[in-house]
Amino acid sequence: MSAIVECIPNFSEGRREEIIETIADAIKAVKGVTLLDYSSDKSHNRSVFTFIGDPESVKQAAFASCKMASKLINMTKHSGGHPRMGATDVIPLVPVKNMTVEECVKLSRELGQQIADELSIPVFLYEDSATKPERKNLATIRRGQFEGMAKKLQDPNWAPDFGKPKIHPTAGVVAVGTRMPLIAFNINLDISDIAIADKIAGTIRESSGGLKHVKAIGVMLEEQNIAQVSINMTNYEKTALHEVFEMVKMEAKRYNANITNSEIIGLVPMNALIDIAKYYLWLDGFNADKQVLENYLIQ
Amino acid sequence: MSAIVECIPNFSEGRREEIIETIADAIKAVKGVTLLDYSSDKSHNRSVFTFIGDPESVKQAAFASCKMASKLINMTKHSGGHPRMGATDVIPLVPVKNMTVEECVKLSRELGQQIADELSIPVFLYEDSATKPERKNLATIRRGQFEGMAKKLQDPNWAPDFGKPKIHPTAGVVAVGTRMPLIAFNINLDISDIAIADKIAGTIRESSGGLKHVKAIGVMLEEQNIAQVSINMTNYEKTALHEVFEMVKMEAKRYNANITNSEIIGLVPMNALIDIAKYYLWLDGFNADKQVLENYLIQ
Repeated sequence: MSAIVECIPNFSEGRREEIIETIADAIKAVKGVTLLDYSSDKSHNRSVFTFIGDPESVKQAAFASCKMASKLINMTKHSGGHPRMGATDVIPLVPVKNMTVEECVKLSRELGQQIADELSIPVFLYEDSATKPERKNLATIRRGQFEGMAKKLQDPNWAPDFGKPKIHPTAGVVAVGTRMPLIAFNINLDISDIAIADKIAGTIRESSGGLKHVKAIGVMLEEQNIAQVSINMTNYEKTALHEVFEMVKMEAKRYNANITNSEIIGLVPMNALIDIAKYYLWLDGFNADKQVLENYLIQ
Repeated sequence: MSAIVECIPNFSEGRREEIIETIADAIKAVKGVTLLDYSSDKSHNRSVFTFIGDPESVKQAAFASCKMASKLINMTKHSGGHPRMGATDVIPLVPVKNMTVEECVKLSRELGQQIADELSIPVFLYEDSATKPERKNLATIRRGQFEGMAKKLQDPNWAPDFGKPKIHPTAGVVAVGTRMPLIAFNINLDISDIAIADKIAGTIRESSGGLKHVKAIGVMLEEQNIAQVSINMTNYEKTALHEVFEMVKMEAKRYNANITNSEIIGLVPMNALIDIAKYYLWLDGFNADKQVLENYLIQ
Protein backbone atom coordinates (compact mmCIF):
# COMPACT_ATOMS: atom_id res chain seq x y z
CA MET A 1 0.00 0.00 0.00
CA SER A 2 1.40 3.36 -0.95
CA ALA A 3 1.66 6.39 1.31
CA ILE A 4 -1.08 9.02 1.30
CA VAL A 5 -0.75 12.70 2.20
CA GLU A 6 -3.41 15.35 2.63
CA CYS A 7 -2.69 18.95 1.68
CA ILE A 8 -4.84 21.91 2.78
CA PRO A 9 -3.34 25.06 1.21
CA ASN A 10 -4.84 28.47 2.03
CA PHE A 11 -4.83 31.17 -0.68
CA SER A 12 -5.40 34.91 -0.24
CA GLU A 13 -8.30 35.14 -2.65
CA GLY A 14 -11.91 34.49 -1.70
CA ARG A 15 -13.86 36.78 -4.00
CA ARG A 16 -12.86 36.50 -7.66
CA GLU A 17 -14.27 33.16 -8.75
CA GLU A 18 -12.20 32.86 -11.94
CA ILE A 19 -8.98 32.98 -9.92
CA ILE A 20 -10.25 30.38 -7.43
CA GLU A 21 -11.31 28.09 -10.28
CA THR A 22 -7.96 28.50 -12.06
CA ILE A 23 -6.15 27.41 -8.89
CA ALA A 24 -8.54 24.45 -8.57
CA ASP A 25 -7.77 23.50 -12.18
CA ALA A 26 -4.03 23.57 -11.47
CA ILE A 27 -4.56 21.03 -8.69
CA LYS A 28 -6.96 18.84 -10.67
CA ALA A 29 -4.49 18.71 -13.58
CA VAL A 30 -2.05 16.64 -11.49
CA LYS A 31 -2.58 12.90 -11.90
CA GLY A 32 -2.60 10.96 -8.63
CA VAL A 33 -4.30 13.75 -6.71
CA THR A 34 -7.99 13.99 -5.70
CA LEU A 35 -9.39 17.42 -4.88
CA LEU A 36 -11.88 16.72 -2.07
CA ASP A 37 -13.14 20.17 -1.34
CA TYR A 38 -12.54 23.89 -1.71
CA SER A 39 -14.37 26.74 -0.11
CA SER A 40 -13.98 30.51 -0.03
CA ASP A 41 -14.77 33.18 2.52
CA LYS A 42 -15.53 36.54 0.96
CA SER A 43 -15.03 38.62 4.12
CA HIS A 44 -11.73 36.87 4.86
CA ASN A 45 -10.92 37.08 1.13
CA ARG A 46 -9.40 33.64 1.46
CA SER A 47 -9.90 30.11 0.08
CA VAL A 48 -9.04 26.72 1.54
CA PHE A 49 -8.45 23.70 -0.67
CA THR A 50 -8.26 20.06 0.46
CA PHE A 51 -6.67 17.39 -1.68
CA ILE A 52 -5.07 13.97 -1.16
CA GLY A 53 -2.83 11.58 -3.03
CA ASP A 54 0.59 9.95 -3.04
CA PRO A 55 3.42 12.15 -1.70
CA GLU A 56 5.06 12.99 -5.04
CA SER A 57 1.77 13.93 -6.72
CA VAL A 58 0.66 16.01 -3.72
CA LYS A 59 3.98 17.87 -3.70
CA GLN A 60 3.57 18.52 -7.43
CA ALA A 61 -0.02 19.77 -7.02
CA ALA A 62 0.91 21.95 -4.03
CA PHE A 63 3.70 23.52 -6.05
CA ALA A 64 1.50 24.00 -9.12
CA SER A 65 -1.22 25.72 -7.06
CA CYS A 66 1.33 27.93 -5.30
CA LYS A 67 2.85 28.89 -8.65
CA MET A 68 -0.57 29.70 -10.09
CA ALA A 69 -1.52 31.79 -7.02
CA SER A 70 1.74 33.74 -7.28
CA LYS A 71 0.83 34.67 -10.84
CA LEU A 72 -2.79 35.61 -10.17
CA ILE A 73 -2.81 37.19 -6.70
CA ASN A 74 -1.17 40.53 -5.94
CA MET A 75 -0.77 40.93 -2.18
CA THR A 76 -0.14 44.68 -2.45
CA LYS A 77 -3.82 44.95 -3.37
CA HIS A 78 -5.20 42.35 -0.96
CA SER A 79 -7.51 43.13 1.93
CA GLY A 80 -9.51 40.78 4.09
CA GLY A 81 -10.42 39.92 7.65
CA HIS A 82 -7.98 37.01 8.12
CA PRO A 83 -4.27 37.49 8.91
CA ARG A 84 -2.13 36.62 5.86
CA MET A 85 1.40 37.01 4.60
CA GLY A 86 1.34 35.55 1.08
CA ALA A 87 -0.66 34.80 -2.07
CA THR A 88 -0.33 31.22 -0.94
CA ASP A 89 -0.47 31.86 2.78
CA VAL A 90 0.14 28.42 4.24
CA ILE A 91 0.53 24.85 2.95
CA PRO A 92 -0.14 22.23 5.65
CA LEU A 93 0.84 18.66 4.75
CA VAL A 94 -0.79 15.88 6.75
CA PRO A 95 0.42 12.25 6.78
CA VAL A 96 -2.78 10.25 6.36
CA LYS A 97 -1.66 6.69 5.71
CA ASN A 98 1.52 4.61 5.58
CA MET A 99 3.64 7.66 6.19
CA THR A 100 5.50 8.85 9.27
CA VAL A 101 5.62 12.45 10.44
CA GLU A 102 9.36 12.37 9.62
CA GLU A 103 8.68 11.36 6.01
CA CYS A 104 6.11 14.13 5.74
CA VAL A 105 8.59 16.66 7.17
CA LYS A 106 11.03 15.59 4.45
CA LEU A 107 8.34 16.18 1.83
CA SER A 108 7.58 19.64 3.26
CA ARG A 109 11.27 20.55 3.05
CA GLU A 110 11.45 19.44 -0.59
CA LEU A 111 8.36 21.51 -1.38
CA GLY A 112 9.74 24.55 0.47
CA GLN A 113 13.05 24.30 -1.37
CA GLN A 114 11.28 24.08 -4.75
CA ILE A 115 9.05 27.10 -4.02
CA ALA A 116 12.06 29.21 -2.98
CA ASP A 117 14.22 28.06 -5.90
CA GLU A 118 11.72 28.24 -8.74
CA LEU A 119 9.29 30.94 -7.61
CA SER A 120 11.65 33.16 -5.53
CA ILE A 121 9.19 33.14 -2.63
CA PRO A 122 10.78 32.89 0.85
CA VAL A 123 9.52 29.88 2.81
CA PHE A 124 9.11 29.30 6.55
CA LEU A 125 8.74 25.78 7.92
CA TYR A 126 6.21 25.51 10.77
CA GLU A 127 4.57 22.99 13.16
CA ASP A 128 6.30 19.59 13.04
CA SER A 129 8.54 20.86 10.21
CA ALA A 130 9.76 23.88 12.22
CA THR A 131 13.51 24.38 12.54
CA LYS A 132 13.22 26.46 15.74
CA PRO A 133 10.72 26.24 18.60
CA GLU A 134 9.43 29.79 17.94
CA ARG A 135 8.54 28.78 14.39
CA LYS A 136 6.20 25.96 15.44
CA ASN A 137 3.25 28.31 15.74
CA LEU A 138 2.06 29.73 12.41
CA ALA A 139 0.62 32.84 14.09
CA THR A 140 4.10 33.77 15.38
CA ILE A 141 5.61 33.44 11.91
CA ARG A 142 2.79 35.44 10.36
CA ARG A 143 2.93 38.28 12.89
CA GLY A 144 3.39 41.57 10.98
CA GLN A 145 1.53 40.08 8.02
CA PHE A 146 2.35 40.78 4.36
CA GLU A 147 2.90 44.49 4.99
CA GLY A 148 5.45 43.91 7.77
CA MET A 149 7.21 40.92 6.23
CA ALA A 150 9.89 42.78 4.21
CA LYS A 151 11.24 44.27 7.41
CA LYS A 152 10.76 41.11 9.51
CA LEU A 153 12.89 39.06 7.09
CA GLN A 154 15.83 41.43 7.72
CA ASP A 155 15.92 40.28 11.37
CA PRO A 156 18.48 37.40 11.44
CA ASN A 157 16.11 35.53 13.78
CA TRP A 158 13.53 35.58 11.03
CA ALA A 159 15.64 34.58 8.05
CA PRO A 160 13.47 32.22 6.01
CA ASP A 161 14.18 28.46 6.00
CA PHE A 162 14.43 28.50 2.22
CA GLY A 163 15.17 31.40 -0.15
CA LYS A 164 16.73 34.80 0.35
CA PRO A 165 15.56 37.12 3.16
CA LYS A 166 13.72 39.17 0.58
CA ILE A 167 9.95 39.19 0.23
CA HIS A 168 8.40 38.32 -3.15
CA PRO A 169 7.00 41.71 -4.25
CA THR A 170 3.48 40.46 -5.01
CA ALA A 171 3.29 36.91 -3.61
CA GLY A 172 4.87 37.65 -0.20
CA VAL A 173 5.97 34.73 1.94
CA VAL A 174 4.63 31.20 2.41
CA ALA A 175 4.63 28.80 5.36
CA VAL A 176 4.94 25.08 4.70
CA GLY A 177 4.56 22.56 7.48
CA THR A 178 3.64 19.09 8.61
CA ARG A 179 0.93 18.40 11.13
CA MET A 180 -1.12 15.39 12.17
CA PRO A 181 -4.75 15.19 10.98
CA LEU A 182 -6.97 17.43 13.06
CA ILE A 183 -10.29 16.02 14.21
CA ALA A 184 -13.12 18.36 15.20
CA PHE A 185 -15.03 16.52 17.93
CA ASN A 186 -17.94 18.05 19.84
CA ILE A 187 -19.60 16.61 22.94
CA ASN A 188 -23.05 17.87 23.90
CA LEU A 189 -24.27 18.08 27.50
CA ASP A 190 -27.77 17.92 28.97
CA ILE A 191 -27.38 21.36 30.56
CA SER A 192 -27.67 24.94 29.36
CA ASP A 193 -24.91 26.33 31.58
CA ILE A 194 -21.89 27.25 29.46
CA ALA A 195 -19.82 27.82 32.62
CA ILE A 196 -19.85 24.06 33.25
CA ALA A 197 -18.87 23.26 29.65
CA ASP A 198 -16.04 25.78 30.05
CA LYS A 199 -14.87 24.14 33.28
CA ILE A 200 -14.88 20.69 31.66
CA ALA A 201 -13.03 22.06 28.61
CA GLY A 202 -10.47 23.60 30.98
CA THR A 203 -9.91 20.27 32.69
CA ILE A 204 -9.42 18.20 29.55
CA ARG A 205 -7.32 20.54 27.35
CA GLU A 206 -3.55 20.49 27.21
CA SER A 207 -3.08 24.24 27.62
CA SER A 208 -4.50 24.15 31.14
CA GLY A 209 -2.89 20.89 32.19
CA GLY A 210 -5.22 18.21 30.80
CA LEU A 211 -4.73 15.74 27.97
CA LYS A 212 -1.91 16.34 25.52
CA HIS A 213 -2.93 17.07 21.89
CA VAL A 214 -6.36 18.30 22.99
CA LYS A 215 -7.75 21.81 22.50
CA ALA A 216 -11.17 22.53 23.98
CA ILE A 217 -13.59 25.34 24.77
CA GLY A 218 -17.13 25.52 26.06
CA VAL A 219 -19.68 26.84 23.59
CA MET A 220 -23.38 27.52 23.83
CA LEU A 221 -25.68 26.08 21.13
CA GLU A 222 -28.24 28.87 21.33
CA GLU A 223 -30.95 27.27 19.21
CA GLN A 224 -30.99 24.02 21.16
CA ASN A 225 -30.17 25.81 24.43
CA ILE A 226 -27.48 23.33 25.36
CA ALA A 227 -23.86 23.64 26.37
CA GLN A 228 -21.20 21.88 24.34
CA VAL A 229 -17.56 20.97 24.88
CA SER A 230 -16.02 21.78 21.49
CA ILE A 231 -12.76 19.90 20.95
CA ASN A 232 -9.92 19.81 18.45
CA MET A 233 -7.87 16.61 18.58
CA THR A 234 -4.46 17.40 17.11
CA ASN A 235 -2.94 13.92 17.30
CA TYR A 236 -5.45 11.07 17.54
CA GLU A 237 -2.64 8.49 17.56
CA LYS A 238 -1.26 9.87 20.81
CA THR A 239 -4.54 10.96 22.45
CA ALA A 240 -7.58 9.08 21.22
CA LEU A 241 -11.17 10.28 20.96
CA HIS A 242 -12.42 7.76 23.50
CA GLU A 243 -10.00 9.08 26.13
CA VAL A 244 -11.50 12.54 25.73
CA PHE A 245 -15.04 11.15 25.69
CA GLU A 246 -14.57 9.16 28.88
CA MET A 247 -12.88 12.09 30.62
CA VAL A 248 -15.70 14.46 29.69
CA LYS A 249 -18.24 11.87 30.87
CA MET A 250 -16.49 11.61 34.22
CA GLU A 251 -16.01 15.35 34.69
CA ALA A 252 -19.63 16.08 33.71
CA LYS A 253 -20.78 13.83 36.57
CA ARG A 254 -19.09 16.16 39.07
CA TYR A 255 -21.44 18.90 37.90
CA ASN A 256 -24.48 16.65 37.82
CA ALA A 257 -24.42 16.84 34.02
CA ASN A 258 -24.50 14.08 31.41
CA ILE A 259 -23.36 13.66 27.84
CA THR A 260 -26.31 13.44 25.46
CA ASN A 261 -24.38 12.75 22.26
CA SER A 262 -21.26 13.65 20.31
CA GLU A 263 -20.41 14.63 16.73
CA ILE A 264 -17.43 14.64 14.43
CA ILE A 265 -17.28 17.60 12.05
CA GLY A 266 -15.64 17.13 8.67
CA LEU A 267 -13.12 14.50 7.72
CA VAL A 268 -11.62 11.83 9.94
CA PRO A 269 -9.05 9.13 9.15
CA MET A 270 -10.42 5.59 9.33
CA ASN A 271 -7.89 4.58 11.96
CA ALA A 272 -9.12 7.21 14.43
CA LEU A 273 -12.46 5.37 14.47
CA ILE A 274 -10.98 1.88 14.43
CA ASP A 275 -8.93 2.78 17.51
CA ILE A 276 -12.21 3.47 19.31
CA ALA A 277 -13.70 0.10 18.29
CA LYS A 278 -10.53 -1.65 19.46
CA TYR A 279 -10.65 0.12 22.82
CA TYR A 280 -14.25 -0.64 23.67
CA LEU A 281 -14.22 -4.26 22.43
CA TRP A 282 -10.88 -4.96 24.15
CA LEU A 283 -9.77 -6.10 20.71
CA ASP A 284 -6.28 -7.63 20.67
CA GLY A 285 -3.93 -8.24 17.76
CA PHE A 286 -6.08 -6.44 15.21
CA ASN A 287 -4.15 -5.25 12.16
CA ALA A 288 -6.27 -2.68 10.32
CA ASP A 289 -3.93 -2.53 7.31
CA LYS A 290 -4.40 -6.24 6.69
CA GLN A 291 -7.87 -6.89 8.09
CA VAL A 292 -10.00 -3.97 6.95
CA LEU A 293 -11.37 -4.85 3.54
CA GLU A 294 -11.35 -1.27 2.24
CA ASN A 295 -7.59 -1.04 2.66
CA TYR A 296 -7.27 -3.40 -0.30
CA LEU A 297 -9.31 -1.05 -2.46
CA ILE A 298 -7.06 1.98 -2.01
CA GLN A 299 -4.79 2.42 -4.98
CA MET B 1 -18.32 5.98 -5.35
CA SER B 2 -18.85 2.75 -7.22
CA ALA B 3 -20.23 -0.46 -5.79
CA ILE B 4 -17.86 -3.13 -4.50
CA VAL B 5 -18.49 -6.89 -4.28
CA GLU B 6 -16.46 -9.61 -2.69
CA CYS B 7 -16.37 -13.10 -4.20
CA ILE B 8 -15.11 -16.19 -2.34
CA PRO B 9 -15.35 -19.15 -4.75
CA ASN B 10 -14.44 -22.65 -3.55
CA PHE B 11 -12.82 -25.08 -6.01
CA SER B 12 -12.45 -28.85 -5.68
CA GLU B 13 -8.67 -28.90 -6.04
CA GLY B 14 -6.27 -28.40 -3.15
CA ARG B 15 -3.28 -30.49 -4.13
CA ARG B 16 -2.04 -29.83 -7.68
CA GLU B 17 -0.39 -26.44 -7.48
CA GLU B 18 -0.31 -25.81 -11.24
CA ILE B 19 -4.11 -26.04 -11.41
CA ILE B 20 -4.57 -23.73 -8.43
CA GLU B 21 -2.17 -21.20 -9.95
CA THR B 22 -3.92 -21.36 -13.33
CA ILE B 23 -7.24 -20.55 -11.66
CA ALA B 24 -5.56 -17.68 -9.78
CA ASP B 25 -4.21 -16.38 -13.09
CA ALA B 26 -7.69 -16.45 -14.63
CA ILE B 27 -8.92 -14.20 -11.82
CA LYS B 28 -5.90 -11.86 -11.90
CA ALA B 29 -6.32 -11.42 -15.65
CA VAL B 30 -9.58 -9.51 -15.14
CA LYS B 31 -9.05 -5.76 -14.85
CA GLY B 32 -10.95 -4.16 -11.98
CA VAL B 33 -10.53 -7.14 -9.69
CA THR B 34 -8.04 -7.56 -6.82
CA LEU B 35 -7.21 -11.08 -5.64
CA LEU B 36 -6.76 -10.70 -1.88
CA ASP B 37 -5.99 -14.24 -0.89
CA TYR B 38 -6.16 -17.88 -1.85
CA SER B 39 -5.44 -20.91 0.23
CA SER B 40 -5.65 -24.66 -0.24
CA ASP B 41 -6.35 -27.56 2.04
CA LYS B 42 -4.68 -30.77 0.91
CA SER B 43 -6.80 -33.13 3.03
CA HIS B 44 -10.01 -31.38 1.92
CA ASN B 45 -8.56 -31.24 -1.63
CA ARG B 46 -10.16 -27.83 -1.91
CA SER B 47 -9.10 -24.19 -2.43
CA VAL B 48 -10.76 -20.95 -1.41
CA PHE B 49 -10.13 -17.70 -3.30
CA THR B 50 -11.05 -14.19 -2.15
CA PHE B 51 -11.26 -11.29 -4.57
CA ILE B 52 -12.99 -7.92 -4.74
CA GLY B 53 -13.90 -5.32 -7.32
CA ASP B 54 -16.77 -3.62 -9.09
CA PRO B 55 -19.78 -5.87 -9.78
CA GLU B 56 -19.21 -6.37 -13.53
CA SER B 57 -15.52 -7.20 -13.12
CA VAL B 58 -16.22 -9.58 -10.23
CA LYS B 59 -18.89 -11.37 -12.26
CA GLN B 60 -16.44 -11.68 -15.14
CA ALA B 61 -13.65 -13.02 -12.90
CA ALA B 62 -16.02 -15.45 -11.17
CA PHE B 63 -17.14 -16.77 -14.55
CA ALA B 64 -13.55 -16.99 -15.86
CA SER B 65 -12.41 -18.96 -12.80
CA CYS B 66 -15.43 -21.28 -12.99
CA LYS B 67 -14.76 -21.89 -16.69
CA MET B 68 -11.08 -22.62 -16.01
CA ALA B 69 -11.95 -24.99 -13.13
CA SER B 70 -14.42 -26.87 -15.36
CA LYS B 71 -11.61 -27.47 -17.85
CA LEU B 72 -8.96 -28.53 -15.32
CA ILE B 73 -10.86 -30.43 -12.63
CA ASN B 74 -12.49 -33.81 -13.23
CA MET B 75 -14.93 -34.56 -10.43
CA THR B 76 -15.16 -38.26 -11.33
CA LYS B 77 -11.58 -38.52 -10.03
CA HIS B 78 -11.90 -36.17 -7.04
CA SER B 79 -11.60 -37.29 -3.44
CA GLY B 80 -11.25 -35.16 -0.31
CA GLY B 81 -12.55 -34.67 3.20
CA HIS B 82 -14.92 -31.80 2.46
CA PRO B 83 -18.42 -32.29 0.96
CA ARG B 84 -18.50 -31.08 -2.66
CA MET B 85 -20.70 -31.28 -5.73
CA GLY B 86 -18.73 -29.49 -8.46
CA ALA B 87 -15.33 -28.48 -9.84
CA THR B 88 -16.39 -25.01 -8.77
CA ASP B 89 -18.32 -26.02 -5.70
CA VAL B 90 -19.79 -22.73 -4.55
CA ILE B 91 -19.53 -19.03 -5.51
CA PRO B 92 -20.60 -16.69 -2.67
CA LEU B 93 -21.04 -13.04 -3.62
CA VAL B 94 -20.91 -10.48 -0.82
CA PRO B 95 -22.06 -6.85 -1.14
CA VAL B 96 -19.25 -4.89 0.50
CA LYS B 97 -19.94 -1.26 -0.33
CA ASN B 98 -22.56 0.90 -2.03
CA MET B 99 -24.56 -2.15 -3.00
CA THR B 100 -27.77 -3.60 -1.63
CA VAL B 101 -28.41 -7.30 -1.08
CA GLU B 102 -31.03 -7.05 -3.85
CA GLU B 103 -28.48 -5.72 -6.34
CA CYS B 104 -26.12 -8.51 -5.36
CA VAL B 105 -28.87 -11.12 -5.82
CA LYS B 106 -29.40 -9.74 -9.33
CA LEU B 107 -25.68 -10.13 -10.02
CA SER B 108 -25.74 -13.73 -8.73
CA ARG B 109 -28.63 -14.53 -11.07
CA GLU B 110 -26.76 -13.09 -14.06
CA LEU B 111 -23.69 -15.13 -13.16
CA GLY B 112 -25.75 -18.29 -12.70
CA GLN B 113 -27.45 -17.80 -16.05
CA GLN B 114 -24.11 -17.31 -17.81
CA ILE B 115 -22.56 -20.43 -16.22
CA ALA B 116 -25.54 -22.56 -17.25
CA ASP B 117 -25.71 -21.10 -20.77
CA GLU B 118 -22.05 -21.06 -21.69
CA LEU B 119 -20.57 -23.90 -19.64
CA SER B 120 -23.60 -26.25 -19.47
CA ILE B 121 -23.20 -26.57 -15.70
CA PRO B 122 -26.50 -26.63 -13.73
CA VAL B 123 -26.68 -23.84 -11.13
CA PHE B 124 -28.46 -23.65 -7.77
CA LEU B 125 -29.06 -20.28 -6.13
CA TYR B 126 -28.58 -20.34 -2.34
CA GLU B 127 -28.65 -18.09 0.78
CA ASP B 128 -30.15 -14.66 0.01
CA SER B 129 -30.39 -15.60 -3.69
CA ALA B 130 -32.39 -18.78 -3.00
CA THR B 131 -35.67 -19.25 -4.88
CA LYS B 132 -37.14 -21.64 -2.29
CA PRO B 133 -36.70 -21.76 1.50
CA GLU B 134 -35.12 -25.24 1.35
CA ARG B 135 -32.43 -23.90 -0.98
CA LYS B 136 -31.17 -21.25 1.45
CA ASN B 137 -28.83 -23.67 3.16
CA LEU B 138 -25.91 -24.78 0.98
CA ALA B 139 -25.55 -28.06 2.88
CA THR B 140 -29.11 -29.06 1.90
CA ILE B 141 -28.42 -28.36 -1.79
CA ARG B 142 -25.13 -30.24 -1.65
CA ARG B 143 -26.57 -33.32 0.11
CA GLY B 144 -25.75 -36.40 -2.02
CA GLN B 145 -22.61 -34.65 -3.27
CA PHE B 146 -21.20 -34.99 -6.79
CA GLU B 147 -21.85 -38.73 -6.92
CA GLY B 148 -25.55 -38.38 -6.03
CA MET B 149 -26.26 -35.22 -8.01
CA ALA B 150 -27.25 -36.81 -11.35
CA LYS B 151 -30.11 -38.60 -9.61
CA LYS B 152 -31.03 -35.66 -7.34
CA LEU B 153 -31.51 -33.35 -10.35
CA GLN B 154 -34.19 -35.72 -11.67
CA ASP B 155 -36.36 -34.90 -8.65
CA PRO B 156 -38.64 -32.01 -9.77
CA ASN B 157 -38.07 -30.41 -6.34
CA TRP B 158 -34.37 -30.25 -7.16
CA ALA B 159 -34.49 -28.93 -10.72
CA PRO B 160 -31.64 -26.42 -10.95
CA ASP B 161 -32.38 -22.67 -11.01
CA PHE B 162 -30.47 -22.33 -14.26
CA GLY B 163 -29.61 -24.95 -16.87
CA LYS B 164 -31.04 -28.35 -17.63
CA PRO B 165 -31.57 -30.97 -14.88
CA LYS B 166 -28.51 -32.81 -16.15
CA ILE B 167 -25.20 -32.87 -14.32
CA HIS B 168 -22.07 -31.70 -16.15
CA PRO B 169 -20.16 -35.01 -16.56
CA THR B 170 -16.87 -33.75 -15.08
CA ALA B 171 -17.65 -30.34 -13.50
CA GLY B 172 -20.84 -31.39 -11.68
CA VAL B 173 -23.07 -28.67 -10.27
CA VAL B 174 -22.36 -25.22 -8.82
CA ALA B 175 -24.11 -23.12 -6.19
CA VAL B 176 -24.14 -19.33 -6.57
CA GLY B 177 -25.49 -17.10 -3.84
CA THR B 178 -25.50 -13.77 -2.08
CA ARG B 179 -24.70 -13.39 1.58
CA MET B 180 -23.69 -10.54 3.84
CA PRO B 181 -20.03 -10.33 4.93
CA LEU B 182 -19.29 -12.83 7.66
CA ILE B 183 -17.23 -11.63 10.60
CA ALA B 184 -15.37 -14.14 12.75
CA PHE B 185 -15.37 -12.65 16.26
CA ASN B 186 -13.98 -14.44 19.31
CA ILE B 187 -14.38 -13.38 22.91
CA ASN B 188 -12.02 -14.82 25.51
CA LEU B 189 -13.01 -15.41 29.13
CA ASP B 190 -10.94 -15.52 32.31
CA ILE B 191 -12.04 -19.08 33.06
CA SER B 192 -11.02 -22.54 31.90
CA ASP B 193 -14.51 -24.06 32.02
CA ILE B 194 -15.79 -24.68 28.50
CA ALA B 195 -19.25 -25.49 29.88
CA ILE B 196 -19.70 -21.82 30.80
CA ALA B 197 -18.51 -20.63 27.36
CA ASP B 198 -21.01 -23.09 25.87
CA LYS B 199 -23.84 -21.75 28.01
CA ILE B 200 -23.04 -18.17 27.04
CA ALA B 201 -22.83 -19.17 23.35
CA GLY B 202 -26.22 -20.86 23.71
CA THR B 203 -27.74 -17.69 25.15
CA ILE B 204 -26.46 -15.31 22.48
CA ARG B 205 -26.90 -17.35 19.29
CA GLU B 206 -29.96 -17.20 17.06
CA SER B 207 -30.44 -20.96 16.77
CA SER B 208 -31.23 -21.25 20.47
CA GLY B 209 -33.24 -18.06 20.77
CA GLY B 210 -30.64 -15.32 21.18
CA LEU B 211 -29.55 -12.58 18.81
CA LYS B 212 -30.48 -12.85 15.17
CA HIS B 213 -27.58 -13.25 12.68
CA VAL B 214 -25.32 -14.68 15.38
CA LYS B 215 -23.79 -18.16 15.42
CA ALA B 216 -21.76 -19.12 18.47
CA ILE B 217 -20.10 -22.07 20.19
CA GLY B 218 -17.88 -22.47 23.21
CA VAL B 219 -14.36 -23.62 22.47
CA MET B 220 -11.40 -24.42 24.68
CA LEU B 221 -8.05 -22.80 23.88
CA GLU B 222 -5.95 -25.67 25.21
CA GLU B 223 -2.57 -23.95 25.14
CA GLN B 224 -3.72 -20.92 27.09
CA ASN B 225 -6.17 -23.00 29.16
CA ILE B 226 -9.00 -20.51 28.65
CA ALA B 227 -12.56 -20.83 27.42
CA GLN B 228 -13.68 -18.78 24.43
CA VAL B 229 -17.02 -17.86 22.94
CA SER B 230 -16.37 -18.27 19.22
CA ILE B 231 -18.83 -16.26 17.13
CA ASN B 232 -19.79 -15.83 13.50
CA MET B 233 -21.65 -12.61 12.78
CA THR B 234 -23.63 -13.13 9.58
CA ASN B 235 -25.11 -9.64 9.23
CA TYR B 236 -23.26 -6.89 11.11
CA GLU B 237 -25.68 -4.25 9.81
CA LYS B 238 -28.60 -5.92 11.59
CA THR B 239 -26.77 -7.26 14.64
CA ALA B 240 -23.61 -5.36 15.53
CA LEU B 241 -20.45 -6.63 17.20
CA HIS B 242 -20.91 -4.40 20.23
CA GLU B 243 -24.35 -5.91 20.92
CA VAL B 244 -22.78 -9.36 21.09
CA PHE B 245 -19.87 -8.08 23.16
CA GLU B 246 -22.11 -6.41 25.73
CA MET B 247 -24.38 -9.44 25.93
CA VAL B 248 -21.45 -11.79 26.50
CA LYS B 249 -20.09 -9.42 29.15
CA MET B 250 -23.42 -9.44 30.98
CA GLU B 251 -23.95 -13.20 30.69
CA ALA B 252 -20.39 -13.91 31.84
CA LYS B 253 -21.10 -12.02 35.08
CA ARG B 254 -23.82 -14.53 35.94
CA TYR B 255 -21.14 -17.22 36.03
CA ASN B 256 -18.63 -15.06 37.89
CA ALA B 257 -16.56 -14.86 34.72
CA ASN B 258 -15.14 -11.85 32.88
CA ILE B 259 -14.09 -11.03 29.35
CA THR B 260 -10.33 -10.68 29.05
CA ASN B 261 -10.17 -9.59 25.41
CA SER B 262 -11.62 -10.21 21.98
CA GLU B 263 -10.30 -10.80 18.47
CA ILE B 264 -11.48 -10.50 14.90
CA ILE B 265 -10.18 -13.20 12.58
CA GLY B 266 -9.66 -12.34 8.92
CA LEU B 267 -11.30 -9.55 7.00
CA VAL B 268 -13.87 -7.07 8.24
CA PRO B 269 -15.65 -4.23 6.41
CA MET B 270 -14.73 -0.76 7.66
CA ASN B 271 -18.32 0.05 8.53
CA ALA B 272 -18.61 -2.84 10.98
CA LEU B 273 -15.91 -1.13 13.07
CA ILE B 274 -17.22 2.40 12.54
CA ASP B 275 -20.63 1.26 13.85
CA ILE B 276 -18.88 0.29 17.10
CA ALA B 277 -17.18 3.69 17.42
CA LYS B 278 -20.51 5.42 16.78
CA TYR B 279 -22.23 3.33 19.44
CA TYR B 280 -19.75 3.89 22.23
CA LEU B 281 -19.18 7.60 21.55
CA TRP B 282 -22.93 8.26 21.16
CA LEU B 283 -21.96 9.75 17.82
CA ASP B 284 -24.88 11.38 16.00
CA GLY B 285 -25.22 12.35 12.35
CA PHE B 286 -21.96 10.75 11.27
CA ASN B 287 -21.82 9.93 7.54
CA ALA B 288 -18.96 7.48 6.97
CA ASP B 289 -19.21 7.72 3.17
CA LYS B 290 -18.57 11.44 3.29
CA GLN B 291 -16.50 11.85 6.45
CA VAL B 292 -14.02 8.99 6.40
CA LEU B 293 -11.01 10.17 4.45
CA GLU B 294 -10.20 6.74 3.02
CA ASN B 295 -13.53 6.58 1.23
CA TYR B 296 -12.20 9.24 -1.15
CA LEU B 297 -9.25 7.04 -2.02
CA ILE B 298 -11.28 4.06 -3.19
CA GLN B 299 -11.49 3.96 -6.96
